[in-house]
Amino acid sequence: MAPRADLGSAQAPTSAVTSRDGGDLLLDVLREWGADHFFGCPGSTEVPILDACVGRDTPRFVLVPHEGVAVAAADGYARATGRPGVVTLHANVGLANAVSHAHAARMSRVPVVLLNIIKQRSILSHGAFTVAPDHQEMVEQYTKWAWTTLRAEELREDLDEAFRLALQPPCGPVYLGIPQDVLEQPATNEAGSIYPRTVKPARCDSRPAADAVAVAADLLAGCRFPLIVAGGAAAPPDAFPLVQELAQVLGAGVCCENRVSLDYNGYPTHDAHYLGPYAPAHPAVPEADVILAVGTRLFVEFLPPTQPWVPPGVQLIHLHDEAKDIGRLYPPAVALMGSIALGLADLLDALRSGTDLSPETRQRRDETVTRLRSARAERVSAELAAIATTHPIKVGRLMQALGAVATEQTTFVVDAATSHDQAVDYLPRPDGMSFHAAATSGNLGWGMGAALGIKLGAPGRSVVAVLGDGVFMFGMPALWVAARHSLPVVFVVINNGMYAAVKAGLLRRNGRAAAAGAFPGTDISGVDHVLTARGLGVDGVRVSDPEELEGVLALAVAAGRPFLVEVMIDPDDVGSLKR
Amino acid sequence: MAPRADLGSAQAPTSAVTSRDGGDLLLDVLREWGADHFFGCPGSTEVPILDACVGRDTPRFVLVPHEGVAVAAADGYARATGRPGVVTLHANVGLANAVSHAHAARMSRVPVVLLNIIKQRSILSHGAFTVAPDHQEMVEQYTKWAWTTLRAEELREDLDEAFRLALQPPCGPVYLGIPQDVLEQPATNEAGSIYPRTVKPARCDSRPAADAVAVAADLLAGCRFPLIVAGGAAAPPDAFPLVQELAQVLGAGVCCENRVSLDYNGYPTHDAHYLGPYAPAHPAVPEADVILAVGTRLFVEFLPPTQPWVPPGVQLIHLHDEAKDIGRLYPPAVALMGSIALGLADLLDALRSGTDLSPETRQRRDETVTRLRSARAERVSAELAAIATTHPIKVGRLMQALGAVATEQTTFVVDAATSHDQAVDYLPRPDGMSFHAAATSGNLGWGMGAALGIKLGAPGRSVVAVLGDGVFMFGMPALWVAARHSLPVVFVVINNGMYAAVKAGLLRRNGRAAAAGAFPGTDISGVDHVLTARGLGVDGVRVSDPEELEGVLALAVAAGRPFLVEVMIDPDDVGSLKR
Repeated sequence: MAPRADLGSAQAPTSAVTSRDGGDLLLDVLREWGADHFFGCPGSTEVPILDACVGRDTPRFVLVPHEGVAVAAADGYARATGRPGVVTLHANVGLANAVSHAHAARMSRVPVVLLNIIKQRSILSHGAFTVAPDHQEMVEQYTKWAWTTLRAEELREDLDEAFRLALQPPCGPVYLGIPQDVLEQPATNEAGSIYPRTVKPARCDSRPAADAVAVAADLLAGCRFPLIVAGGAAAPPDAFPLVQELAQVLGAGVCCENRVSLDYNGYPTHDAHYLGPYAPAHPAVPEADVILAVGTRLFVEFLPPTQPWVPPGVQLIHLHDEAKDIGRLYPPAVALMGSIALGLADLLDALRSGTDLSPETRQRRDETVTRLRSARAERVSAELAAIATTHPIKVGRLMQALGAVATEQTTFVVDAATSHDQAVDYLPRPDGMSFHAAATSGNLGWGMGAALGIKLGAPGRSVVAVLGDGVFMFGMPALWVAARHSLPVVFVVINNGMYAAVKAGLLRRNGRAAAAGAFPGTDISGVDHVLTARGLGVDGVRVSDPEELEGVLALAVAAGRPFLVEVMIDPDDVGSLKR
Repeated sequence: MAPRADLGSAQAPTSAVTSRDGGDLLLDVLREWGADHFFGCPGSTEVPILDACVGRDTPRFVLVPHEGVAVAAADGYARATGRPGVVTLHANVGLANAVSHAHAARMSRVPVVLLNIIKQRSILSHGAFTVAPDHQEMVEQYTKWAWTTLRAEELREDLDEAFRLALQPPCGPVYLGIPQDVLEQPATNEAGSIYPRTVKPARCDSRPAADAVAVAADLLAGCRFPLIVAGGAAAPPDAFPLVQELAQVLGAGVCCENRVSLDYNGYPTHDAHYLGPYAPAHPAVPEADVILAVGTRLFVEFLPPTQPWVPPGVQLIHLHDEAKDIGRLYPPAVALMGSIALGLADLLDALRSGTDLSPETRQRRDETVTRLRSARAERVSAELAAIATTHPIKVGRLMQALGAVATEQTTFVVDAATSHDQAVDYLPRPDGMSFHAAATSGNLGWGMGAALGIKLGAPGRSVVAVLGDGVFMFGMPALWVAARHSLPVVFVVINNGMYAAVKAGLLRRNGRAAAAGAFPGTDISGVDHVLTARGLGVDGVRVSDPEELEGVLALAVAAGRPFLVEVMIDPDDVGSLKR
């Protein structure tokens, strides 16, 4: 881009930066690794990167005016594209605000690349402005790799290593600190490395051992009733249909993970084998003598459990791609360690080449699935019928309405602590992109940023963010980004005016608060979410009447612009205390 | 509080928690250490504490719906009261959101006590919900002490130790992780400790060595012109008037710290010896042959310096209470290590008992001060005259108007990156509570929470928060708290629609952005701050006309309720690029 002569004299004399420097190099590396967008809330240390953006279309910098929301946006972008979600951070203060959602990316195994531009090397030891004693330490435990570039000569190598490790399965966040002055140096090291460059990680897929697969196949074929727990790691397109095929071949029931584990949808909820979220009290559990867990941690615990989640006597088969999670709390009868998709394919091969199920076995299993599925349908149906027109609106009624306006292309981004149970129970999820959450992290506020990133990465999806009103307080800057970029995300705010999870905890405790009917630390009422959103540039409406829900939500989805729907929810609807 | 029988049956059968437990104990310890308020954004782990709040007036839990804002509020409360600012956090996710302002409390040496209620010990090793691999590590480098209570038996001892260390000068944040189940156990350890209890730290004040004081006094008395740099550690009431007295006795000039160091006001700006913020280019520096730095770090660097900030040949005397900061970059001719107030008193004694200044010396120094002060007054006056009626409003004009409506009881809480220079230059600061900032940290968003805490801790002060529009995005939840508690804080938002610090950086770089007049990553325009505040329960107005500034600000200050003034500022006013 040519300098504009008429602007040159007052504040900008002829450019002093003409040569290619570390900022240019960084943007090139981003583009080569497929990061077409990157996110950040910049400060002065990122100036070399921003300057390098002038005159470039790709990668495109998306200003997100809070680092936490920026990390969530990068997380969503990576989930939608399978490519790296990159965030540039401003020194230790930017990093501090990023820690929360770095944790979320770690738990959900998302390839988020945190590039933290720290102060110049000459003053890093001085306790200078925005210099931490140890910036890496803040986030090290939540990353696969944390490093700091020491010289301009290693900048490209360090960036490549960050991207390689983020993207190598199991994916996850990485951290690279880059001193500002390293970015300001000429990019002289581009041709000189003795190591060949790569812009994708080496394929390191492993398959479970064949003998273990054979034992698993025999167990699954020969047992009374196999129950599959389809985890989030079964959500990618290469694995997703294989679980379905396996359930079909086996006549198995399938549960998804529960609300504190379900980060991705690993099984279609419309499938004839689907039985709802797993729990030790699920009616399918006593039927099962074999449980096949596919791509899940077994288990993320919210409370100390009062009974084993895999009942004694049940044979557990655990297919997963992280050895550390296999046998952690529930030692499996058969461990299948390796790629989820390859493990599923091997299991299917072994089953196909083995003896078919006997007609009696198939009939018994099919009847079991049908019976369990009918019971579930009746339960859900009764629950929803009981609250169809209740004032104020119940959480379940909202989830029903959201389901009613969803299509095959809807992606629900759920961030709503207490309402998460009902979201998992009721929302339709046809494919691996139907549902995203950072449930295993437990942070608030991820959903609003993630929805932006998913929409940017998958413009064809209809993105509906389902948000608690507590969550809203953590994600408000996302509304401004949606407005600025005209991103047609629907933000649905569950306004119950309270921290329902805390009220539920006080009721579980059954102490003085429960006795007095007074619940300190729970009342967050009084926010007008529609007005707040308007202040940030996003239009919206408030709904109090259950009869209006589907109509308003359908209009919001069709609006073609960012839109907020504030749903006034019964504050006494705090979910099941026992869950 | 007696259980309410009519509420007992539906959700709350007769209380199961009747005995005194860890939650009660924790609140008692808070009260004993003087924490009448404490702050937090609770989750279910804090339930034992919240339950113990039922039926108690003190300490009072203030729900702040974002942990970052809660830490800033605790910080402000501690600054205003001198008592501990306590935050209860929800596990690692709450802690993650607190890291940013824990750093601020560390830099500004504020006794903030972070109590993080983590999950039950029985599931902590399981990778349970909201469990970090190492929660202490996230914040260890920003605290004076970080520990985790291992058993109920040590809860009181650990709490006492946290408070003792936070409050022992130099003050600073401490961290204590407490497993939820420890709080749920009976408080059985209350009488049993073999260690005597204390509810205040032992006095550990030290005085600088007498011979060093004598040398310093001789240097100060005998030099041509002494310049005092009065740092934030001179702000407490026991030190504040002593610097003034010292300047008087010596005929010295006095500078405050600059915008990246000024967290507290260490010198009255109306005093006849005050010469404005210190900088190597300050006209007082060439006059000085001795610099006495009192309670300051010397220096917090924003950019790599191009010249020494203490010129060669100048004799430096450094009085400070942290040995690690004395001689770090600028070795002093005389080091005075010890309590600031005691060191000042000793210096004054030594000067009084020594030879008086000769009439010639006094006259020369007085003339130098008068000349420098006049030059400064003329400069400020000319700068303000030039922008008195400029449209759009300039930052300096706003600072002038804020000064005009201030009284002796006004506390400015400043959090406004690029405008910070002019705030320091122009705002009147009569005492040690006139000005608060977290300048040395560089975080955004601290000011909105801190203003709440200062108002709660010092209800007699008129609290005016001066905020960048970038800052606003990080602190919005504070507005809801102000509304909920009817806290009459005035929130002044400097709406220049941009990250001026980043634009300034791009201009300093003088690269492609400067040449093209295009500044990526800087435009944050489009927010209606008044509407957003209304959504969160706080009324406000927008001001675009410089002639209306004083009138509107005076009304806001007199309103007796939380109020937001959005001031439309010239986006091209990005401060001095050279500073």
